Amino acid sequence: MEQRTVFFVSDGTGITAQMLGHSLLTQFEGVGFSQVTLPFVDSAEKAEECCARIEAEAAKGNGRPIVFSTLVNQELRQVVRRANALFLDFFETFIDPLEAGLGIKSSHTIGRSHSAMDKKEYQQRMEAINFAMAHDDGSSHRELGQADVILVGVSRSGKTPTSLYLAMQFGVKAANYPLIPEDFDRGNLPEVLKPHKGRLYGLTIAPERLHEIRKERRPGSKYAELANCRYEVAQAEDLMNREGIRSINSTTKSIEEIATTILRELRIARQVY
Amino acid sequence: MEQRTVFFVSDGTGITAQMLGHSLLTQFEGVGFSQVTLPFVDSAEKAEECCARIEAEAAKGNGRPIVFSTLVNQELRQVVRRANALFLDFFETFIDPLEAGLGIKSSHTIGRSHSAMDKKEYQQRMEAINFAMAHDDGSSHRELGQADVILVGVSRSGKTPTSLYLAMQFGVKAANYPLIPEDFDRGNLPEVLKPHKGRLYGLTIAPERLHEIRKERRPGSKYAELANCRYEVAQAEDLMNREGIRSINSTTKSIEEIATTILRELRIARQVY
Repeated sequence: MEQRTVFFVSDGTGITAQMLGHSLLTQFEGVGFSQVTLPFVDSAEKAEECCARIEAEAAKGNGRPIVFSTLVNQELRQVVRRANALFLDFFETFIDPLEAGLGIKSSHTIGRSHSAMDKKEYQQRMEAINFAMAHDDGSSHRELGQADVILVGVSRSGKTPTSLYLAMQFGVKAANYPLIPEDFDRGNLPEVLKPHKGRLYGLTIAPERLHEIRKERRPGSKYAELANCRYEVAQAEDLMNREGIRSINSTTKSIEEIATTILRELRIARQVY
Repeated sequence: MEQRTVFFVSDGTGITAQMLGHSLLTQFEGVGFSQVTLPFVDSAEKAEECCARIEAEAAKGNGRPIVFSTLVNQELRQVVRRANALFLDFFETFIDPLEAGLGIKSSHTIGRSHSAMDKKEYQQRMEAINFAMAHDDGSSHRELGQADVILVGVSRSGKTPTSLYLAMQFGVKAANYPLIPEDFDRGNLPEVLKPHKGRLYGLTIAPERLHEIRKERRPGSKYAELANCRYEVAQAEDLMNREGIRSINSTTKSIEEIATTILRELRIARQVY
């Protein structure tokens, strides 16, 4: 398979450059991409180093390297773009039409995104992460009223990674609470969840997939048996239907897709960090 | 302050569109942006709805809306771009030069990024998240040898959010282990960490900031006292210096910046999800 080296160059963390580049490269099949991230390129010296590194790769003759850049500083950008590579710059491409459309000049300040510069916003996000940790798997009932969303579902249906993702990526306070056999015997929601019904959201999962996941965790247990997984999932779905709790099947969905769906359905405004 | 409405339109989760748009908008001061994300726009009907929604906003006369799009499907893109707005499409802009540079056509498949389609990669990432949860705050010594990195530092120096971020964003297995007064009295590293010295990375923090954080958590405690914070931080820094453990000061850094620095210094290859 043809191999190309791809560089993600940024004066910040390089996360935006890498995410954008990655989403474009997934559109090309039949080429292997080896990826190099060059973050914190924020001085002439580092830009020269970066240019030399790309040149060295180009000199190997394995096809022209591709550079995805989010360099804000024009002089540094000029240094890096001298390298023999396909240079795609996100900043340069969009800042001009934005300046024209808004009728103002951009500040050309580096490191605005993915920094902790907006202290209040950043602290809210850290609080959301602490909240998700403190309210993982029903571990605390305190302050459940502060939750933007409370995920419910059987053990290993994807509640923990989804809660953490909601906190980390969107700054949303997400608790999660397991539905367990005792709840199914009793036939209704855990008492502590009842005051928060409008903010509950269910995760469900194909019993076969649940069985696989649980088997790895506790091989040979009743907990992991397919019949038991079928029982728990059916009971949880019944309970959610009866209580009018919306839910999503997580079997083939990513945490990004699950989180996006939840925020949209509960009409929670989202920021992306 | 002037207000503009910004739409992030995508046939997937909209996370890439929103991250790109956010990083560009932070360059413009003196304008307030109200943000609307329109994810999963993957049919002609939804594209029409989306167009109508942008039009309705434009008709309010508060300045022309701005649209950041990552629509992959050309027909849907044409529908949305009819709306009266500044339309910036990320896919359209970069896919042509990439096709020319690579000499192949793109697959124009929607929803490639932020999906769980690459099952193996996605499962590795979920495992990394489970690993970070299971090895938070020194809670398990088992499988520490599997960690790509083990963060060390005093309580509340930022270890937990950084470990979770490393797992979530980069799929890196990150454990974290607290340094506590007993370690300082004894004057060396906890025994369980010694076999893993090459993968330890320290987080340190300004004592004043640590004092603020701990005060909120346990007001009036010795744990939160400024003098105690000064003592613990100085002892932890001494210990890390003596043991040759690299460290970063987390006081004014974001988890993105901290994680990027750690991966670079420990030479851990990174994927972005």
